[in-house]
Amino acid sequence: MRVISRALVPVCAYSPVMMGFFLRTSSLRTALRHRSPHRAFSSAGPTGGSTGDLGSSFRTATSRKLHSGANVPEPSPAAAPTRLPFSTVTGDDLAFFEKILPGRAITDPDLLESSNVDWLKSVRGSSEVLLRPQTTEEVSQILKYCNGRNLAVNPQGGNTGLVGGSVPVYDEVILSTALMNKILTFDSISGILTCQAGCVLENLSSHLEERDYIMPLDLGAKGSCHIGGNVATNAGGLRLLRYGSLRGTVLGLEVVLADGRVLDCLTTLRKDNTGYDLKQLFIGSEGTLGVITAVSILCPRKPKSVNVVFLGCETFDQLLRTFQLCRGMLGEILSAFEFLDSECMRLLNTHLKLPNPISDCPFYIVIETSGSNATHDEEKLHNFLEEAMASSLVTDGTVATEDSKIKALWSMRERVTEALTHDGFTYKYDISLPVEQIYQLVTDMREHLGGRAKSVVGYGHVGDGNLHLNITSPAKDPGLLAAVEPFVYQWTARCRGSVSAEHGLGLKKRNYIYYSKPRQAVALMGDIKAMLDPKGILNPYKTLPDDLK
Amino acid sequence: MRVISRALVPVCAYSPVMMGFFLRTSSLRTALRHRSPHRAFSSAGPTGGSTGDLGSSFRTATSRKLHSGANVPEPSPAAAPTRLPFSTVTGDDLAFFEKILPGRAITDPDLLESSNVDWLKSVRGSSEVLLRPQTTEEVSQILKYCNGRNLAVNPQGGNTGLVGGSVPVYDEVILSTALMNKILTFDSISGILTCQAGCVLENLSSHLEERDYIMPLDLGAKGSCHIGGNVATNAGGLRLLRYGSLRGTVLGLEVVLADGRVLDCLTTLRKDNTGYDLKQLFIGSEGTLGVITAVSILCPRKPKSVNVVFLGCETFDQLLRTFQLCRGMLGEILSAFEFLDSECMRLLNTHLKLPNPISDCPFYIVIETSGSNATHDEEKLHNFLEEAMASSLVTDGTVATEDSKIKALWSMRERVTEALTHDGFTYKYDISLPVEQIYQLVTDMREHLGGRAKSVVGYGHVGDGNLHLNITSPAKDPGLLAAVEPFVYQWTARCRGSVSAEHGLGLKKRNYIYYSKPRQAVALMGDIKAMLDPKGILNPYKTLPDDLK
Repeated sequence: MRVISRALVPVCAYSPVMMGFFLRTSSLRTALRHRSPHRAFSSAGPTGGSTGDLGSSFRTATSRKLHSGANVPEPSPAAAPTRLPFSTVTGDDLAFFEKILPGRAITDPDLLESSNVDWLKSVRGSSEVLLRPQTTEEVSQILKYCNGRNLAVNPQGGNTGLVGGSVPVYDEVILSTALMNKILTFDSISGILTCQAGCVLENLSSHLEERDYIMPLDLGAKGSCHIGGNVATNAGGLRLLRYGSLRGTVLGLEVVLADGRVLDCLTTLRKDNTGYDLKQLFIGSEGTLGVITAVSILCPRKPKSVNVVFLGCETFDQLLRTFQLCRGMLGEILSAFEFLDSECMRLLNTHLKLPNPISDCPFYIVIETSGSNATHDEEKLHNFLEEAMASSLVTDGTVATEDSKIKALWSMRERVTEALTHDGFTYKYDISLPVEQIYQLVTDMREHLGGRAKSVVGYGHVGDGNLHLNITSPAKDPGLLAAVEPFVYQWTARCRGSVSAEHGLGLKKRNYIYYSKPRQAVALMGDIKAMLDPKGILNPYKTLPDDLK
Repeated sequence: MRVISRALVPVCAYSPVMMGFFLRTSSLRTALRHRSPHRAFSSAGPTGGSTGDLGSSFRTATSRKLHSGANVPEPSPAAAPTRLPFSTVTGDDLAFFEKILPGRAITDPDLLESSNVDWLKSVRGSSEVLLRPQTTEEVSQILKYCNGRNLAVNPQGGNTGLVGGSVPVYDEVILSTALMNKILTFDSISGILTCQAGCVLENLSSHLEERDYIMPLDLGAKGSCHIGGNVATNAGGLRLLRYGSLRGTVLGLEVVLADGRVLDCLTTLRKDNTGYDLKQLFIGSEGTLGVITAVSILCPRKPKSVNVVFLGCETFDQLLRTFQLCRGMLGEILSAFEFLDSECMRLLNTHLKLPNPISDCPFYIVIETSGSNATHDEEKLHNFLEEAMASSLVTDGTVATEDSKIKALWSMRERVTEALTHDGFTYKYDISLPVEQIYQLVTDMREHLGGRAKSVVGYGHVGDGNLHLNITSPAKDPGLLAAVEPFVYQWTARCRGSVSAEHGLGLKKRNYIYYSKPRQAVALMGDIKAMLDPKGILNPYKTLPDDLK
């Protein structure tokens, strides 16, 4: 998301659920040397360091209790469940991996480090092997082997997820798509791109922009995230209002199933009504049903003109009516309609010294247009602004057409997250609601918390009905957290909202699924998981709640 | 589809696979009077008429061999397979249906007639009961009962399908959504409509247009088709190029599963990443996995301006380059890019006396724009046309901005189907291909058939890569059919195309699925069917190939 300015978010400050960190206690480099016949160990007890003894080395990986360092008396629904009885990686396994992936079965702890820890540094796994296949055939061989051996696998793209879905929880084998980074085809007539799953989003964007196209999605993490991970998590981002979700733009997928079977649905057709649309199963299933190895995606033309306007409103109702007017008058060129409240503006002023570009208002709007004709776009925008001012929907505003001013206006929306990190410890929620209700949650939360929180702020994607609710306190505050949760989830459930609009469930939110999905639906998800991955080796502990296990 | 002018298509002239018709031989009205304790009969032998004897009446329904009247020596892959061992409807069953649906369990043969026969009159079932529930709860009760009794069920919307998917094949209970026609909510800020599955598309369009919105899909059958059926068949239609497929615009579904469980995924959220997106399973699965009872759908604003232009090109390559130029210069206002070849024009001239509005060319294009500002749209169109003429991509053209002239130009594209019906017996194919290849199939087919066919014509949705290939002969010609099939399917398969772009598979195309989907994928579809409908009662003989049974 454009709102995240990564370099400025302090380590461990993002997640409401802070988990303990562990020192690395063993190394599989030792195991590789020993080639032990031992396969699995069920006894427990963490050890203090690498001993060179295979038994204790693997025993450590098997029994290590993650997150026990967090000083929460009751385990949070976000905490890791007990390790499931998967096998542990042996020397024989490593020998097999090294044979099929020469030089690409990584066991060096230094090289493994960044794959074991998520970007927020809130979840740490203890995997001792990272596999870097280059081809679908290699992925197939890996999964066939792991399924036969009952070894759990953590598929990993750019590792930019925010819910602990992209890193191992225990000692899962990490299967990285980093070396599957080839663009396969681009059809400049239809705008359809086909590529391997490990292509970095920004590289795809550059490739397309040279050809007068853009990717249908854009994210703050685009410099790191992989298209396969984007699809696996059904990433939303900044262009969703305009180009729709990946469920519409992804035309085909190639997926390797848990048992190594390759499912070839990599078509490049806009229309295909021959049977069930299997690819949809894998979009947004967070690597729990299969490993996406290639993607075909429909790309829009690059816009020739972009404008941004920053407006102020007196009430949220006026803001909603402005949205309605805007959809009517800007129509086909509207590409973003974002908002922030006056509390956000206060934090921007206070912590980042960003001056308000207009007069003070309770609510602010950022609107972006993109189109094929600059003169037309500016005229539409001008007409819309005249009407919005004349009907007193907005009280003040400013327009930008130059790049530098566009960036400055966007930064008022994008840098709210950064301002929050300076305000204190932040509890963050990514909520989807019917658009009329998105701000009521902020108002109700303020009233509910009284003076208990330092700040309660709301901002987000009005066009998508997606609220980012953030609550700060001077330091981590379990009492405050207890007042916020499950209040926020219950409130969302009453409005039939989603407790995860775009971030997914991963490890951290898996047990909150019932706030947004009925039991019948979750049970059916469990049936699908059991059908496609009977041993449950793919990304265990993620997406589905513990009570299905 | 806009191309189909229903009133003018002669009965039985559409489908390449003509099936025999059968006289009604029994009546369940008799059964209803007798209330027999008999449940099922396994012995066989068709009877000549209604005897009033329950045994023979039901025995008839069980054993009747459909399509045996077709004088084809080898059974076509499109012909109905043997009846599966479902129970037959008894008097007790009818009593149950009448109890839960008072006055809405129809057994009158005259009233059943239109539900037993498809719109093309190419498939006739022999169901003896039509159920017309009004609520989801009633649908749930029906399916729970039928599943318990092992009674097959044919879900039916507006019965406008073209592949025999919407009518019973044997004596399946017909479950019609016709009385489930309530609009539940419409949110004029977000443009999200929620309604029961039986709402007629045109009624929804009228409802929305009064509120300055439109449905994201439009079809020739809109006066009859139900939104539930549209979703169940993933209908394409005229607005797909602009607004994308139902996989993106449908936000939520309520579905009753085969065993009567109600799956409530009827959310109205643009973003929701909590678990697997179950609704996608039911979009396009043609009623074989569940019965859709309600739909929520994201609707676009009504365009304020519409223009149509008719152009001529010398080569198909120029036509494709025109498409590319058009996407760049018309960008966000492009809403259709359709084509027809000179053979289509000849048929329009000859059979319908429609004069060519421009000079003779090998290829013709129909482009539609729709946008929020008439002046801007006309200017964009003007600039595009100047460029297309200056670069010699198009050789002639005419523009329409008034409604009557717009209709006249559209009719050149829409009435090709009608012109074909005057040319002779028509073999029709609805093929999806990579856009560069769509016309090569027509060229290759002409060469392949030599002088064997009367006409070989191509037209369709360039923007969607969807070719309508049509081959006529003076009369039905099995030799010609044998030359066309499987040639057309093999050709399509070599280009990784789809043998059903928008019509689905239904009964007629179920066994052609392997031309577009690999065995692994079809096997997985079978697993999904077995998971959701273990007894296979939902719309049997449809969508999945016989070899999965």
